[in-house]
Amino acid sequence: MSILRAPYRAADLRRLLQPASVALVGASADPRSLGGRALANLRGFGGRLHLVNPRRSEIDGRPCRPSVADLPEPPDCVVLAIPMEQTEAVLLQCAAAGAGAAVVFASGYAETGTPEGQQAQQRLAAIATATGLRLVGPNCVGVANRGLGLQAAFAGFPAHEDAPGRRIGLVSQSGALGLALSQAAERGVCFSHVLSCGNSCDVDVADFVMALAEDPGCDAIALGFEGLQEPARLAPALQFAVVRGRPVAFCPVGISAAGREAVRFHTATLAADLASLRGLRVAAIESLVEAAVLLAKAGRPVAPGVAVLSASGGTGILAVDAAASAGVVTPQPGPATVQRLRAALPAFAAARNPCDATAQATRHPESMLAAADALLADECFGALVVPWGRSQDPAVLDGIAELAAQHGKPACIVWTPQFPLVDVFRRIEASPSLVLFQSMRGCFDALAGWMAPITPG
Amino acid sequence: MSILRAPYRAADLRRLLQPASVALVGASADPRSLGGRALANLRGFGGRLHLVNPRRSEIDGRPCRPSVADLPEPPDCVVLAIPMEQTEAVLLQCAAAGAGAAVVFASGYAETGTPEGQQAQQRLAAIATATGLRLVGPNCVGVANRGLGLQAAFAGFPAHEDAPGRRIGLVSQSGALGLALSQAAERGVCFSHVLSCGNSCDVDVADFVMALAEDPGCDAIALGFEGLQEPARLAPALQFAVVRGRPVAFCPVGISAAGREAVRFHTATLAADLASLRGLRVAAIESLVEAAVLLAKAGRPVAPGVAVLSASGGTGILAVDAAASAGVVTPQPGPATVQRLRAALPAFAAARNPCDATAQATRHPESMLAAADALLADECFGALVVPWGRSQDPAVLDGIAELAAQHGKPACIVWTPQFPLVDVFRRIEASPSLVLFQSMRGCFDALAGWMAPITPG
Repeated sequence: MSILRAPYRAADLRRLLQPASVALVGASADPRSLGGRALANLRGFGGRLHLVNPRRSEIDGRPCRPSVADLPEPPDCVVLAIPMEQTEAVLLQCAAAGAGAAVVFASGYAETGTPEGQQAQQRLAAIATATGLRLVGPNCVGVANRGLGLQAAFAGFPAHEDAPGRRIGLVSQSGALGLALSQAAERGVCFSHVLSCGNSCDVDVADFVMALAEDPGCDAIALGFEGLQEPARLAPALQFAVVRGRPVAFCPVGISAAGREAVRFHTATLAADLASLRGLRVAAIESLVEAAVLLAKAGRPVAPGVAVLSASGGTGILAVDAAASAGVVTPQPGPATVQRLRAALPAFAAARNPCDATAQATRHPESMLAAADALLADECFGALVVPWGRSQDPAVLDGIAELAAQHGKPACIVWTPQFPLVDVFRRIEASPSLVLFQSMRGCFDALAGWMAPITPG
Repeated sequence: MSILRAPYRAADLRRLLQPASVALVGASADPRSLGGRALANLRGFGGRLHLVNPRRSEIDGRPCRPSVADLPEPPDCVVLAIPMEQTEAVLLQCAAAGAGAAVVFASGYAETGTPEGQQAQQRLAAIATATGLRLVGPNCVGVANRGLGLQAAFAGFPAHEDAPGRRIGLVSQSGALGLALSQAAERGVCFSHVLSCGNSCDVDVADFVMALAEDPGCDAIALGFEGLQEPARLAPALQFAVVRGRPVAFCPVGISAAGREAVRFHTATLAADLASLRGLRVAAIESLVEAAVLLAKAGRPVAPGVAVLSASGGTGILAVDAAASAGVVTPQPGPATVQRLRAALPAFAAARNPCDATAQATRHPESMLAAADALLADECFGALVVPWGRSQDPAVLDGIAELAAQHGKPACIVWTPQFPLVDVFRRIEASPSLVLFQSMRGCFDALAGWMAPITPG
């Protein structure tokens, strides 16, 4: 499959993703309308914000211009919160006014499956090609760049505290999926960007991956995608990101026959050749962000074995089952480690892998930490998995984090209760050496992908 | 494999699970100790509670007796919060005093993998057999029967509001897993019982299933187990439960080679013949309770097809992928349904399966409900799956619940955001026709199991 155009680079998308000025066409004072919601989301933007609406002279004290042609400067990025019927004319005005990029929310294009919709989308693509305007959408939720306070979107991505150094760039073709995944921010995951591209008539997920690969604010990329207009563009983009030190976790959606058919209806795009994609392929979308956090925090694996340390026999057994199912090896520790485990743990504990420190460990944190140290020190293990229950003292997590950092190996904390404790989640996410997983399957699927380059056979 | 003894019936376990009186041996005023925690958990018990501790005359104003022999009545159930060394002597006292059952928390038995531990456990089993005392444990967390306010356990199972008619009996060999699963109560799942049996030297999970099958407080059973002393007892117990109208969702743990080895170390038991077990087998423990809730609420499936209705294309595609992977069919609706969908939805929506009602549906609940009605009315569908995002109005859930009830088909709400909204979760759990799932895989795995009896081929 030949590539019709090379992916865009960060410089090509600078005015889209790092705008100094943004114009909102269809700005509205009604907070429930598309234009009102987009305005609310743009209020945090640190750059210059211009409003366009021919029926208003101001909204909330901000001047409103009748058209893009009347703005005081050529806007870097224009957000179009207007119906499909007006979109082409406004895009031409944007290009004429010297705008750099446009985000199109409107639906009714290729996703309808009708010839009219497809033709309308081809006209948008032609405008982008002819004018050099970089176009996101149509039928998209929008884009956010946390560093700039930019949220050029009609849905609000959740705000969160900044945790420098472990930022995930989230790329999702589907806006609803991007929005759903971005909610991980509320439990402490730090996103540098949330980028959705909908029907992708110009900019697509491959272009976003390229741009993030050169963005110093992004440490790892989480990518969800359905189909692409030019599927062959994705593999080189992922390759570029990996080479630039931005590991990618990706989850393809629409891979079943019914899924492919629905993708055709939804965005009229084609499936990528999954075998050609470099990165960590995640089986279930629920684990995508967690896998990306593993990549952002973990560095390269130093050994293919995984040690399991639990405060209960049952959760340890669950872990080795999930490991086996994901193809992750859980070897027995060396004799020196066994000796250290025996010294650290009660006589009725299991000084092996999985290591059951028993419920006593919840009352004797020092024995849990001594066991963690012994397992992390063993050269046959590249990572530690610790199933975590609600009765365990969260302060022990800080000790495990410190040991993991000392040994240069990640400690994956698998939350086993059927109910989250947000404070504990945030504590885990804030640590550079702890990775939170909410399912055992998700944890070992991610570890399998992370360890694949060094897994024997 | 021959069965050495038949499973216990509800009548055999009456004094254990429906005690009029409970004695706590090892009662303590220290809230951090095993005996102190057990006492705190027993405070809500509606029956008569007796305390035993030779070193105290009272705790918190309750009299403390020196031994079980000194109690004012033969206790139905005795909870032993004492070390392994004292356990055999106290069990013999319990039997002599006319107690009916005992719960043994102590560790150090077969789970150590040592001959001494195995022999000590055989002596406990021999006491149970010889005296008729029904024994739970050793190495167990305990049992709870919500209807009696009974929590004979050293760990606290979460309290929750009562939602009559859809109560899950939770049976878990592992106490830690039982505890973790019981946390679903905090998001609105109603448990009639939480029963753990640890090493299962006398009472095992098969016996618990038998007892729940005859308990009017229990509507469906969620069962997690590792290995059994007598694996052949489990299949007839599940058969009995299903015949008695208590559908069972079960998740075997310790099924990999490493898992079986860890089970042998942990509880020294054997794997059951999974193919012989009737019920809904769940692949991932995270979905066990959700699957049991489906069984409790859904009745029998009337058609093998599943319809998907979403407010976004991406989540609908995710759903049909998960359906395909689980072997659930998602057929196209009949022409009458398509006509109704077209009338209900915007022109750019997908009037097919998966049905993408588009983001407009979040602003026009009536179109979402009309689409749900059309899909539920179609005779090719036995269930509706609705991926749910945070921006959707929870009030619409009540409308979907009503339609699902009218059509006698369950509506599975799949929560897509990476962060829970507990109020919405409780609203879903409280409905008799809505079933909450927190992962798409978990939803379709459960639907596949539920529909298996009518799935063609």
